Parts: sequence; C-alpha cells; structure tokens
Amino acid sequence: MRESVRVLGIDPGTAVTGWGVVEGRPGAFRHLGHGTVSPPLKLTLARKLAHIHGAVVEQCATWRPHALALEKSFVGRNVQSAFRLGEVRGVVMLAAAAAGVVVAEYSPAETKLAVTGSGRAEKTQVERAIARELALDGAIPADAADALALALCHLQTFRLRALLAATAPRRLPLGAR
Amino acid sequence: MRESVRVLGIDPGTAVTGWGVVEGRPGAFRHLGHGTVSPPLKLTLARKLAHIHGAVVEQCATWRPHALALEKSFVGRNVQSAFRLGEVRGVVMLAAAAAGVVVAEYSPAETKLAVTGSGRAEKTQVERAIARELALDGAIPADAADALALALCHLQTFRLRALLAATAPRRLPLGAR
Repeated sequence: MRESVRVLGIDPGTAVTGWGVVEGRPGAFRHLGHGTVSPPLKLTLARKLAHIHGAVVEQCATWRPHALALEKSFVGRNVQSAFRLGEVRGVVMLAAAAAGVVVAEYSPAETKLAVTGSGRAEKTQVERAIARELALDGAIPADAADALALALCHLQTFRLRALLAATAPRRLPLGAR
Repeated sequence: MRESVRVLGIDPGTAVTGWGVVEGRPGAFRHLGHGTVSPPLKLTLARKLAHIHGAVVEQCATWRPHALALEKSFVGRNVQSAFRLGEVRGVVMLAAAAAGVVVAEYSPAETKLAVTGSGRAEKTQVERAIARELALDGAIPADAADALALALCHLQTFRLRALLAATAPRRLPLGAR
C-alpha cells in the first residue's frame, strides 16, 4: 500500500487565515482538522503577522505535513490588497521553510477545478464538494473550507501527476541505447 | 544630552534587500553600516524569504535599533510585483516584531522629501544628499542607499515630531482644571 500524503492547506489573510489538514492515499481522503486564525484587531501589522506565523509554525509541528498548499490569487485585487496578502503569504512560506515543508501554490480557479470539476464553481458548490469528499457534517468557516479545498487540490493534482507519470512511456536511460 | 536614536532602514526586494543603520541625536547623524542581502537565485521562494528573514534577524541582534524604517511603495506597481514585495515586507516585519523593534513605514516620496527637501527628487540627488549628510565617501549600492535614506527619513520625521511636540501649547490635565 502506498504511503499516504498529508497536506496543510492555508488560505491567507491579515484578518482571517484559514487552515485545513487532509491526508490522502489513492481513492481515499481523510479530514484531520481545520480552523481559522484571527489576530487581535488592536495589534500592529507586524504583531499580527507574528501571530499568524506562530500559528502556522504550530500547525506544521502538530500535523507534520508533507506539503503546504497556499492560495495564489492575483485576480480581482488592487495593489494595496496584494501587498497585505503578500505579507501574510511571506510569513506562511517562512514557517513552511523552517519546518522543511514544501510549498505548492494554487490559484482559486485551479482549486475549484480540482475539487468540483469546474474552474468557475460557486463558493457554495466548493463547500458542498469538500463536505462530500471529506464526509464532513455541519458548517465550516468559509476560510477553513477554502484551506481544505487547497489541501484537496494538492492531493488531486499530486495523484494526477503520479498517474500521468505511471502511464507515460518510459524513456530508456542514455547508457541503454 | 538627549539619548540618540538608532534606526535600521530596510529597502525590501526578493532579489536584493538593502539595509542601512543610522544613529541620530539632534543635529548629528552618524552612519553605522549598510549593505545588501541577495538570496541565491536557485533557492525556492520560501527559502529566499527565509534567507532575507535570517539576515534581518541578524541585523536587529547586531545593531539593536530603536526602530525599523521600511519602504511602503504602492505606486507604479502591478499586482504581481506587489505580491512579491509584500512577501519580503512580511518576513522583515516579522523579524522586527520578534526583536521588539517598532516598524515605521515611509513612501518613496516621504523619504525623498525628508532627505532632499523635494518629494520628486531624482535617485542621484537622494544619493548625494545621503553621502553629504552621513559624510560617506565612495559608491554605495543603490538598495543600501535607499535603506540609509529610509533610516534618515525616520530620524528627520522623528526630530520634527519632537520639535512640534515641544512647541505645541500644553494641554492641562483634566484634574488641574
């Protein structure tokens, strides 16, 4: 049996950062945990970033993921909001690097495509697909749902790549020609 | 004699981050050091950020600055470059927060105004003003010069605020009325 892969999905945001952990082996995904991180509003920006960084460091230590799937969203943003989001992405990537966890980035369209089969799926469709795939009951905070979708997207993409690699014609090593 | 204030200026960038340390007391600024940080190109983005973060952590430990003056530049950027810059800003602010150093942000226009007297000064004018003010000989890397300008800007602004506070009419405390 192939070893399962554990992925920590992170939907970054200064006000709310969502996280979700999914473990997968071919044909089976398992939800391990999810939640949100919201630094106290009165903190300075630097201390908010430290708060989020600390939370991701803790997630990496708790779950020991193989990969961190991070949202990469350029569309529909202005420069100011891209700055704010970049700052959070920076401290998230730093936590991953320190823990030796590989960072994989996915756009919202890639995530929607992997989870629902359509890159233009509505938010509620994504949430339903996650709940079904991970056998979850009850409401999940929107940012945590996005984080779980990112983790699932990584596992799907990962599986797809493995399948493609397995079915691709093998190239003979140079020495064997 | 008033205690002097030490400022670490940081001009953030994924490829090159400039730093410069200036100490100031009323009427006298002293250059303590400057340099640039360039993570190896082959590193992943997360490892580049870790490299920059480590350098700023080290600068904070070496110089023990009272404040970190960080460039805040929204103008003339696209969303993608704002993301990249935001990521570096995030790990710089994190290093400051961990060292208990206050972060002050200045736009390029504010920095130019403080250093040359004009918010629209050319790059060479800024460099000449820094060299004169800090009695520097020889060429300074552009990113380090920008970092020194940020540190000077903070000291000028800080001095201005102190002067304004000293000349402002004092308000009587409520109990004294």
